[in-house]
Parts: sequence; C-alpha cells; structure tokens
Amino acid sequence: MRSYGQYCSIARALDVVGDRWTLLIVRELLLRGPCRFTDLRNGLPGIAPNLLSTRLKELEAAGLITREDAPPPVATVLYELSETGRAVEPVLKALGLWGMRFMAEERPDDTFQARWLAYASEWFTVDADPDAPPAVIQLVAAGEAAVVELRGGQVHTRLGRAADPDIVLDGPPRAVLGLLGGLVDLDRAVELGLSVTGRVDLLRRLRPVAPN
Amino acid sequence: MRSYGQYCSIARALDVVGDRWTLLIVRELLLRGPCRFTDLRNGLPGIAPNLLSTRLKELEAAGLITREDAPPPVATVLYELSETGRAVEPVLKALGLWGMRFMAEERPDDTFQARWLAYASEWFTVDADPDAPPAVIQLVAAGEAAVVELRGGQVHTRLGRAADPDIVLDGPPRAVLGLLGGLVDLDRAVELGLSVTGRVDLLRRLRPVAPN
Repeated sequence: MRSYGQYCSIARALDVVGDRWTLLIVRELLLRGPCRFTDLRNGLPGIAPNLLSTRLKELEAAGLITREDAPPPVATVLYELSETGRAVEPVLKALGLWGMRFMAEERPDDTFQARWLAYASEWFTVDADPDAPPAVIQLVAAGEAAVVELRGGQVHTRLGRAADPDIVLDGPPRAVLGLLGGLVDLDRAVELGLSVTGRVDLLRRLRPVAPN
Repeated sequence: MRSYGQYCSIARALDVVGDRWTLLIVRELLLRGPCRFTDLRNGLPGIAPNLLSTRLKELEAAGLITREDAPPPVATVLYELSETGRAVEPVLKALGLWGMRFMAEERPDDTFQARWLAYASEWFTVDADPDAPPAVIQLVAAGEAAVVELRGGQVHTRLGRAADPDIVLDGPPRAVLGLLGGLVDLDRAVELGLSVTGRVDLLRRLRPVAPN
C-alpha cells in the first residue's frame, strides 16, 4: 500500500482501501461473512490468486480483517472482517448507489452472481409501505436466485428460493436490477426479457433509494 | 481505465473512480469549483503532471467533468464537475468519515491544506444546538485558516479569516482536526499543541458526526 502522504481523512481512507480490488474484497467479505480463500476467489472473477493473497495480507496488516484457523478436521483458514472492516459498508453503499447509473448497460463479458442481486435489493431499495403485511419477492437473474422479504418497513434479502413467494421476477440481470434500481420501468424491463408472475402491485412497494 | 467486468454497481463505480488519484481529483474539484490544471496540481501534492492529465481525460470521457476555455484574455482551460461528478460527494463523505480513525497519527511528511480543514468541519461535524444564536469559529492549522459558521443548525465553512470570531482554535492539524473529529478531547488537543482563545462552550455545540 502506497500512501498519498496527505493529512486528509479521505486520502487516509484511500491509503487503506484505495488499491485495485481492495473494496471488492471487502464487499465479498461483507456479503459472505467468514469465508475461505477459495470462496473469495470465486466471488471475485478476474482476480489473480497472488494479488488476492497480497491484498488479504495488506487488509490484515491494516486491521480490517482477521484470519483464523477453522476447527479440525476442516484445516482451512477463514477470513473475516473486523469492526473496522465492517465499518466500510457505508462507503460501498455510497459507491453502489452512485454506480447504479452505469447499470443500464450490461456488457457481453460481464460476470454476475446471486450475492450481488441480494445486496442490490437490501442496500438500494426501501419498503415504501411499512404498515402493509409481510411480502416475499423471488428474484431470479442469470439462473441465480435471491429472496427479498418486506416486513415492517424493512427490506431483508437472502440467497436461494422461497417456498411460496408473492411475486417472481425472472430475467436477465439488467432487467431485474434495472427495475429494482429504478433505471427502467416495468414495461421496459419486460422488453428486456423480464418475466413477472404474481402480485405486480408489490413492485410499487419496493422503491429504489433516492439517488443522491 | 480497466473494467472489473462485473455486473455489480459497486464494481461499475470503481471502474470509473477506482483508479489511483481519481477520487482525490474529484475531492479537489468539489472543494474548489471550476479550476485550472495548475490549481489541481497544487491541491494534489505528489501527483505526477502526466498522470493528472491522463486522469482528467478519463474523467471527461466518463462524463464526470467538463473542460471549458476561460474567456480571453485568460486563455486557460477550466475543469469543472458535471452533475454526475458532483454526485460522487456522498462517496467522499463516507470515505472521509471512515478514514477519520486514521487521523490520530500525523506523519512527518504529510502534506496539509486549509481546504481540507474546511471540508472536514463542513462534512464531519453537526451543529448540536440549532436554536442557539449564530456563532463563528476560526480554525488555524499549520498556518492555514478556515472559518466555521454555525447558523440555524447548519455548519458552513469557508477559507480565510473572520473579522470577529467567537473562538479561535490554532495548532497542528492533528490537534485541530482530532478535536473536530472527536478523536481527542480538549485536554489532549491542548497537549498536542492546540491554543484556544474565546468561547470554549462553542466546542460542545460543534459535534462530530456519529461514526457509522
């Protein structure tokens, strides 16, 4: 890690998390919780293993992650965010909210993961009708699935499939995420390949966080 | 700009602002408004001119800045943030708030500028007593000066000196910023070299933004 050598809290933050891949590694650790090197590598398509290894050492030295030996017979190392590392979440949210504007275009060689679908709904949408009864939205994009639960004004998400969802949104990532992020309306999402089954009225309840 | 090739809004944001120096260039443009290449270079100690030039071209291509010829006889180019560029501000705030934890230590070769003093007070403190009468705090650190005005619950700052401040805080950057950021208390700030003249009670009114 090279330092900018500026007595400025933004520069200091970038001294620690400004190198290439670092913030995406923190993203993966936030979404996954304690995990193995292999899990991280799978969640970061395109990263060279030796670079991941270097970054993990830097993050440990800066106090953002801890590494712990998993109990036998697993015999593997688990990486986990420290409190300082978890405190990076608002930075990722601010970046992601700003980056939504670039999500209308999906590039042919973009990789995509269900985990990102899940954080997008939890971080970038709100429940516009907190007094309404709980509801379950099933998201499926590029064959990957996440469940969005609306309950008491909160938006919670998890990976996988719900037993009895109120609505299912299934389609290419940019149709599903474009709709969630307010980049496209329902008609346009359907044009992009979205299939909607169930209570369409729930889409009004899941509202994109206002752009800043 | 190399792309991470991930259909994730955080990765997309980092495709645009994740390269070395880019976010600090946006910081300078936010703090200065329209400015010349020379101004930017002065505000970014350590940057190589050819790298600054490359980054400005990338930022223009990505739609974050515009460049305009200043009217004659000035004959210079002015760089200015676009709406998309200004929308990066919450990212810088989140980074700076997180980075405050690394500000207790001031390194011997750190550079420092009055502009950073000004944004630190405006971004990272709140007026805890909105109903109190307006008050003016003069900050001086490393010989550079900024004025903090508390008025109607708002914290406004500007560079320079006030005619009749209610309190003057003067000392090394880590004493002034440490106190503003809640990293050190008044006693410790005085130990670090802070000199305080005037209404010390106003320090209770200027409250650090809660860490996230």
